[in-house]
Amino acid sequence: MIFTIRKDVFLKALNIANRALSSKVALPILNSLKLELDEEGLHITGSNNDITIKTSVPLKENDEEIISNTKYGGALVNGRLLTEIVRKCERDTLTFDIFDETIVKIKYGNSGFNLNSARAEEYPDFDMEEKGVEVGMKAALFSKLVDTVAFAASTKEQRPVLTAINFEAVDGRLACTTTDGFRLARIEADLDTSESFVANVPAKMAQEVARLIDGEENVRIYFDTKKALFVFGKTIVSVRYAAGEFPNAKAIIPKSFNYFLEINAQELLSAMDRVSTLSLERDNIVTLKMSESSVEVSSKDTQNGSASEEISVFQYQNEPLEVSFNSSYVAQAVKAVGTTDVILAFLGEMKPFAVKSTKDDSIVQLVTPRRTY
Amino acid sequence: MIFTIRKDVFLKALNIANRALSSKVALPILNSLKLELDEEGLHITGSNNDITIKTSVPLKENDEEIISNTKYGGALVNGRLLTEIVRKCERDTLTFDIFDETIVKIKYGNSGFNLNSARAEEYPDFDMEEKGVEVGMKAALFSKLVDTVAFAASTKEQRPVLTAINFEAVDGRLACTTTDGFRLARIEADLDTSESFVANVPAKMAQEVARLIDGEENVRIYFDTKKALFVFGKTIVSVRYAAGEFPNAKAIIPKSFNYFLEINAQELLSAMDRVSTLSLERDNIVTLKMSESSVEVSSKDTQNGSASEEISVFQYQNEPLEVSFNSSYVAQAVKAVGTTDVILAFLGEMKPFAVKSTKDDSIVQLVTPRRTY
Repeated sequence: MIFTIRKDVFLKALNIANRALSSKVALPILNSLKLELDEEGLHITGSNNDITIKTSVPLKENDEEIISNTKYGGALVNGRLLTEIVRKCERDTLTFDIFDETIVKIKYGNSGFNLNSARAEEYPDFDMEEKGVEVGMKAALFSKLVDTVAFAASTKEQRPVLTAINFEAVDGRLACTTTDGFRLARIEADLDTSESFVANVPAKMAQEVARLIDGEENVRIYFDTKKALFVFGKTIVSVRYAAGEFPNAKAIIPKSFNYFLEINAQELLSAMDRVSTLSLERDNIVTLKMSESSVEVSSKDTQNGSASEEISVFQYQNEPLEVSFNSSYVAQAVKAVGTTDVILAFLGEMKPFAVKSTKDDSIVQLVTPRRTY
Repeated sequence: MIFTIRKDVFLKALNIANRALSSKVALPILNSLKLELDEEGLHITGSNNDITIKTSVPLKENDEEIISNTKYGGALVNGRLLTEIVRKCERDTLTFDIFDETIVKIKYGNSGFNLNSARAEEYPDFDMEEKGVEVGMKAALFSKLVDTVAFAASTKEQRPVLTAINFEAVDGRLACTTTDGFRLARIEADLDTSESFVANVPAKMAQEVARLIDGEENVRIYFDTKKALFVFGKTIVSVRYAAGEFPNAKAIIPKSFNYFLEINAQELLSAMDRVSTLSLERDNIVTLKMSESSVEVSSKDTQNGSASEEISVFQYQNEPLEVSFNSSYVAQAVKAVGTTDVILAFLGEMKPFAVKSTKDDSIVQLVTPRRTY
């Protein structure tokens, strides 16, 4: 394999494929990127076993030459080193040349690098096939689905399925759900297919895909039995599902609530932020005390002291109610709902409560209260 | 103690005093700031035993009221919490009030905070006296002295004196020296006093002072027997000396050299940066190969490969010489010298070599070569 390539385009593609590399992989070969050059261009593949990214650089774009002096072939090269070398290039182009199938020679300006490499055939064979239920969607919608629920997924590996976003499609309607056992986030949207499927895509990988499609118009997704395949621009991403059965969200979300507080999202966020200063060492727990005449956010810490703040504008009609919770959970839920005003809907002091939009019901954020004694 | 204070001025003063607080102090009381209000204003003191910072806010500035509704007194308050609470204040002023000598009440807008506090008298008595040899200096010169040598101080605590900048004054001339055993940095400057003194000021603390005096015109320094006192603006900083005897720099710095390479600083820095990509796991070791006809920077790593770069513009007249070294040490030395071109002066392959300015001799940076086999 031999080629001369534009530095900026090469670096951009390397940065995409690199997103799949992990510093903690068990298989040393996965520190490498696979490079393959054929008549369609240069293909770069990176993987950490859970996520595999393949992206391509065409030989020409808009009649402008991007890759020249080509001799087709392939190689495995350390991804981190190759990217650093390309990043530090101060010229417009660089040349890439394999010597004896074991050494990659990279040259630009007065600099020359010899990188130990291996044959492309030694790379594991990851499933990148377009198989399963095909879904087409605006890239912006996919990002919104992920942003609305990803933060509520578990970050602990004990129960892998809880680290996932549960995608469930029935009759042309898609529901995306996450839960870490203390809270739950759910968003629904219409689909362009009426086929049913269930897929548990690790939330971190879904966020990675959302980052990569930023700037794209559309994304095609193939929900297969063991993996989801995301196709956009010149890139294909394959994500392995999390193992296990996802909890039944419908059984967790209450059908109705008894107490409703309507409140300005920003005022609630600021008050919780200030008051939780005094409960930083106690999971940011704050107490919300509601009555028809006043709403107060407060916190207490035996070592440091206490804090409280009156909310000036609100709507609440019912018996007084007092609920304590992790304020960062509620803050994330309020931000994910994304409206100027939000409704907090309660069943009682120790029952999970909902943070909802005042406008539509497609998003539900559920938080479990905390005892303060 | 009672007062109403302008938020912006209070926060700025808290941020200064907070620089002395450390998360690793043994004495819990040092998590507190000492606040004292008298007819001269509000005095805020923070300390971690090694560095003590006292800064003041006047009652008025340019006829504008900064502190009002005053009742003189003092208190100890958790510095991190107090600063967070003041930082999150969205009003122009806030009120501060001590209740029963044990609770500080802070109020702004709809928010109220009760912080547990202690009596000011319980705070340790740190020596903040203006004693010893007095030196006056431009703040910019002090920062230059610190920036030129601080990075070459040791960061390991085994030999505390090596973590210090050695200030040594003789006959109106000041020399500042640091060494971590592998390299040495030294800068000289004229003093406004002919008194002699030696002071080992921990480099990290000297850097803290340099950060704090940024924006000031002048600084007065009192070099005492056990501490240095820095006086500037409305702030006094006391720094405890590092224990131990500093090595004799004059005995370490060679009197003369045999081989001289003159080279553009930026070209050397870029070449070392690129080439050291291949020796990241080997302390960034690179080899400089000099002859009258060519200069080459190279590196080698058995696992990953090798890299080399030709230097295009240089001056070198002597027998060929090959020297290997930690390129980040040389990069820091080149940057500290701060000139467009630098001279690398050698005695031989394995002898310490100097990085010097082409223009003046007040700065010397010394680096010990490394074996590559």
